Amino acid sequence: MRKDNRDNLQLREISFKPDYIKNVPGSALSRQGDTIVLCTALYEERVPPFLKNSDKGWIQAEYSMLPGSTGNQRVQRERQRINNRHIEIQRFIGRALRTTIDLKKIEGFTINVDADVIQADGGTRCAAINGSMLALAKTIRSMVYDTVIRDIPPILFIAAVSIGITDNEILVDLNYDEDFKADADINIVSSENGDIVEVQAFAEESIIPKDIFYKVVDIGIQKNIEIIEKIKKYI
Amino acid sequence: MRKDNRDNLQLREISFKPDYIKNVPGSALSRQGDTIVLCTALYEERVPPFLKNSDKGWIQAEYSMLPGSTGNQRVQRERQRINNRHIEIQRFIGRALRTTIDLKKIEGFTINVDADVIQADGGTRCAAINGSMLALAKTIRSMVYDTVIRDIPPILFIAAVSIGITDNEILVDLNYDEDFKADADINIVSSENGDIVEVQAFAEESIIPKDIFYKVVDIGIQKNIEIIEKIKKYI
Amino acid sequence: MRKDNRDNLQLREISFKPDYIKNVPGSALSRQGDTIVLCTALYEERVPPFLKNSDKGWIQAEYSMLPGSTGNQRVQRERQRINNRHIEIQRFIGRALRTTIDLKKIEGFTINVDADVIQADGGTRCAAINGSMLALAKTIRSMVYDTVIRDIPPILFIAAVSIGITDNEILVDLNYDEDFKADADINIVSSENGDIVEVQAFAEESIIPKDIFYKVVDIGIQKNIEIIEKIKKYI
Amino acid sequence: MRKDNRDNLQLREISFKPDYIKNVPGSALSRQGDTIVLCTALYEERVPPFLKNSDKGWIQAEYSMLPGSTGNQRVQRERQRINNRHIEIQRFIGRALRTTIDLKKIEGFTINVDADVIQADGGTRCAAINGSMLALAKTIRSMVYDTVIRDIPPILFIAAVSIGITDNEILVDLNYDEDFKADADINIVSSENGDIVEVQAFAEESIIPKDIFYKVVDIGIQKNIEIIEKIKKYI
Amino acid sequence: MRKDNRDNLQLREISFKPDYIKNVPGSALSRQGDTIVLCTALYEERVPPFLKNSDKGWIQAEYSMLPGSTGNQRVQRERQRINNRHIEIQRFIGRALRTTIDLKKIEGFTINVDADVIQADGGTRCAAINGSMLALAKTIRSMVYDTVIRDIPPILFIAAVSIGITDNEILVDLNYDEDFKADADINIVSSENGDIVEVQAFAEESIIPKDIFYKVVDIGIQKNIEIIEKIKKYI
Amino acid sequence: MRKDNRDNLQLREISFKPDYIKNVPGSALSRQGDTIVLCTALYEERVPPFLKNSDKGWIQAEYSMLPGSTGNQRVQRERQRINNRHIEIQRFIGRALRTTIDLKKIEGFTINVDADVIQADGGTRCAAINGSMLALAKTIRSMVYDTVIRDIPPILFIAAVSIGITDNEILVDLNYDEDFKADADINIVSSENGDIVEVQAFAEESIIPKDIFYKVVDIGIQKNIEIIEKIKKYI
Repeated sequence: MRKDNRDNLQLREISFKPDYIKNVPGSALSRQGDTIVLCTALYEERVPPFLKNSDKGWIQAEYSMLPGSTGNQRVQRERQRINNRHIEIQRFIGRALRTTIDLKKIEGFTINVDADVIQADGGTRCAAINGSMLALAKTIRSMVYDTVIRDIPPILFIAAVSIGITDNEILVDLNYDEDFKADADINIVSSENGDIVEVQAFAEESIIPKDIFYKVVDIGIQKNIEIIEKIKKYI
Repeated sequence: MRKDNRDNLQLREISFKPDYIKNVPGSALSRQGDTIVLCTALYEERVPPFLKNSDKGWIQAEYSMLPGSTGNQRVQRERQRINNRHIEIQRFIGRALRTTIDLKKIEGFTINVDADVIQADGGTRCAAINGSMLALAKTIRSMVYDTVIRDIPPILFIAAVSIGITDNEILVDLNYDEDFKADADINIVSSENGDIVEVQAFAEESIIPKDIFYKVVDIGIQKNIEIIEKIKKYI
Repeated sequence: MRKDNRDNLQLREISFKPDYIKNVPGSALSRQGDTIVLCTALYEERVPPFLKNSDKGWIQAEYSMLPGSTGNQRVQRERQRINNRHIEIQRFIGRALRTTIDLKKIEGFTINVDADVIQADGGTRCAAINGSMLALAKTIRSMVYDTVIRDIPPILFIAAVSIGITDNEILVDLNYDEDFKADADINIVSSENGDIVEVQAFAEESIIPKDIFYKVVDIGIQKNIEIIEKIKKYI
Repeated sequence: MRKDNRDNLQLREISFKPDYIKNVPGSALSRQGDTIVLCTALYEERVPPFLKNSDKGWIQAEYSMLPGSTGNQRVQRERQRINNRHIEIQRFIGRALRTTIDLKKIEGFTINVDADVIQADGGTRCAAINGSMLALAKTIRSMVYDTVIRDIPPILFIAAVSIGITDNEILVDLNYDEDFKADADINIVSSENGDIVEVQAFAEESIIPKDIFYKVVDIGIQKNIEIIEKIKKYI
Repeated sequence: MRKDNRDNLQLREISFKPDYIKNVPGSALSRQGDTIVLCTALYEERVPPFLKNSDKGWIQAEYSMLPGSTGNQRVQRERQRINNRHIEIQRFIGRALRTTIDLKKIEGFTINVDADVIQADGGTRCAAINGSMLALAKTIRSMVYDTVIRDIPPILFIAAVSIGITDNEILVDLNYDEDFKADADINIVSSENGDIVEVQAFAEESIIPKDIFYKVVDIGIQKNIEIIEKIKKYI
Repeated sequence: MRKDNRDNLQLREISFKPDYIKNVPGSALSRQGDTIVLCTALYEERVPPFLKNSDKGWIQAEYSMLPGSTGNQRVQRERQRINNRHIEIQRFIGRALRTTIDLKKIEGFTINVDADVIQADGGTRCAAINGSMLALAKTIRSMVYDTVIRDIPPILFIAAVSIGITDNEILVDLNYDEDFKADADINIVSSENGDIVEVQAFAEESIIPKDIFYKVVDIGIQKNIEIIEKIKKYI
């Protein structure tokens, strides 16, 4: 039994406040236990240079943490020095979101997704993907409503979950204290059909036996199906 | 009567969620109409170089806007280019907060206040000061509780309000649409005793006759006394 | 009587060397006691992005201090790190200067005003505004002479003065030593008609009673009328 | 059969020039087909701030590409703007290398590993890890030789390989043209014992069925054992 | 005869206002025709990291141009982007100044020399060296006066002159128009004894025959002796 | 006799690996003793802003050192802070290369030359120019081959050599240890006809008598003719 009375394979309480920000077409406040991430999405008529003369649009993400979001010590704003961890995470988020629709359906447009951590208690990148999935779906609806695209493109819903290995035990959806003690940390992004979108496995403290890794991925795929059900309720 | 049915001299609805963030000693979500600013405060045992060998502590503020906080267009993160307006506003906030206590009472410590605009609808710098006043007071209490300082120093409570002049009418607590049309914009920070802490008057579109300016400041002082009463309820 | 034998309400000696720089259409070396600021103004056919498709031109200012301008310690060049104080001041200058003409009269053009402090002895932002007023007026004349605009637009002359409060005494046009000891510092920018353009009141050390504040603003307006007379002699 | 006559599961020719640079304790020129990465490693007596007062040392990596390393277009130097992809990759490399030894054995020291891509033809991050493994092992030997640490700590050898999925075919060690066309790209870092160190799976174009993913990881582990054998020959 | 009625080998009028800035120990306003450079020098008790544990002090220079100093177009401040030409020139100035005294005589101290171009009309780097020579000599005197060093170290006076080659004619001390048309530009820094301190010869438009190059250097050395005489008058 | 058994006027062994990088039209690995510099050149259809509306193309250079290239201590990447020495050197290289062809022959094109020091043992800027000369010549050939320009423009071959003065002895092509001890360092770039392209003479430790300087330049011109012969063999 974990300190917060969860079973090893139990998610924390997950909830979303959709349309949290009135100023943007899509937004969601994503909570996963004590982790809170504000996700917003806006579209603009512009594509990055490498898509000029293509028939595709683009989805990109930025991730950051508010200065007071962690307990240890204030997170420095990125004015003087870019935070490399944030860069890595936003690339992870952006790639995941780009698999959710056929980018040709938003030709000529870029959707900018911003995930800002309000309060951090482990699993922020996953909470960011889950809230961003919702904000993105809302924004695509707005694009239809605003008649900048004609039909809602089919959306493949995805979700993300973090799973840790600590003393050979598999723990789902780590909070900060659990994450700190984990030997390995695996982030699985997978789709409503149970297919894999992205996997990031890190084994700083101890390497991961192959069979345990596969078990972790199996569990992650199941958990993500649970999370996607929650997300879809708000659409 | 204004579009949102307020009298010219009426504030928008003001509310605070104190202790919004569990990870920091003092925080408040400050709402003023549709403007929402998250204010957090942390202390650390360190003073800026210019206070080395003095008997003073320091209070400093940073202000920023989340990318999705405004409706017009996404606010660029300050990773590539610092936003000059943010710099000006955070200096305004920091100076105001430094008048609230005798800095000798926090000798050896710096209190970092962060005001991040979640949603912008006019008056963000004032909502930031009001929420920061609350977060700061909470943090000073925590410092006593944590026994890093001995007694709660006397706190002079302050508040801030924005007042506009539009077609010779005085409008209190402008929202974004009103601010956009205003001829002049005056921000008044004043104390619970009705004394002046800071004034920033800008007259981009039209200059301000002296007697109107004085009337505006009078009103601002009254309104701030109202706001301070609200703030004090949460202490 | 003050250390430099001035009455409390007396300005320091103010003088201007107009057309100090041959390479630009308008320039002035602005001296106020031992404070020396070089002000230059150039126009270019270009407007900032937010004025595209408008019928307005723009005036913007940049402020900096030369490395050897202060006695305490060398001012770091802003190559590695932007100086936040400079940013705040240049925004103050720019806003003031934009009230001096109808921006529609310079449609399609931006006038860049640069104020660089050669020697600092208090009141640099005010000396910058005063010298920039002169450089700007000269530049607008040049624009007519160069036939990029047709008629000299009516210019509303403005000036700026810093007034301090020290031990309840009001001191006009503080030098560095006086500024250092002041309890509060009020910068008033006002027009030749006695109307207010900008006010920045800072009360870091002690708050300002309302009636004293109004008295200070009254004095500032009077002093600025004196300064504007001097400026106009050089036009 | 692939364009370069390889079987789908065949690695490109892999070779190393160890001790390529005379100025550093450990270095290797790592070639994998036409991909060439120069890897150097230096140690210094210093640990990052978060390890002060711990009993651990640190290993960190930086990755970059030389301006002429790719055919498409010149890679901009990171002087004006950091390349986010490089940041993500260097974090991937650093984490992998930190699993190779017990960091307590290099207490008080940081080993800086630099991987600079001389010529890019796909799989640069993997070639970087493979060459860095060799450079790191050489550097640890030098530390013993230089008597800054007492005994060679046990080294867990690791290697990395990139595997792509294209039209449901699994292709090992993609070159640039293959990578460009791949539906999904999986980078597997694993140890000489066949355990997993890091996995990065990206499915931008198409999601990955779970069973194919596991097959890919299985193959990656086998291929890395082949590569580790090559690396060990140079120790 | 040149446009400004000078002989080919004639310097422009050169003058110095020593002690132009009251706030620093040494300063000079250096004029060479219409080129005006403000040179200031300050010392501080600190040496750069590479001189820690040595018995030497250091002299370093920074060079910049004020935004309104040139006629063509406003010089961008270096806040967003460092000006590479300025970096090259300040290194040229710093090296030259470091030959003027035995750096052991200012052990533990760094003298910072700043050369800021107020008005540019060709030859700014040479006017900067000439004015800096004077400011530096003044500062070294102040160090003795302030008793931070014991005796005035022997100073080797140096000066700098720019010489151009245009259509096979040698032109001394080019102004902007002449510089623009020159085929080659040679900057000679030499000492009061006629020895060479630094030479920078650039032949962008046309290469320089060896014998002409030697003639130019000969002339430069002669001209610098003239300039040094002027500088020494102010000591 | 020097430590490495060379005569004072003898060059180190110089060699080039042309076409070292397959991805760019021109490249060369330039070795001079233990100094190794990778030089690459690419062309693009674009000219810098100051050549808009002219009939010229442009050649520009960038220079940097890989982190592990020196023995003393790791060279910091320029991500956080630009290396001023690199800036100075790349300007030196760029100017030299621009004399080699008539820029009108590459109208509308910019050739970017990159020189990255793989291993540093003195004379890196000269090895960079020599390798870049070769890479540039190859690239110009490619431009003809790619039919972006019609005829190979006449190329004036140039080379560069560093000559030091140590205890009144003239030493050609200094390695790192010799450079460290030299009283003066003169870099001569000259053409196949023996004309001067650029000279950079630095006399940090001791000034240079004029006649010795001329002797050094004479020797440099001779040595460069030797080097140019080697370069031309690879064309």
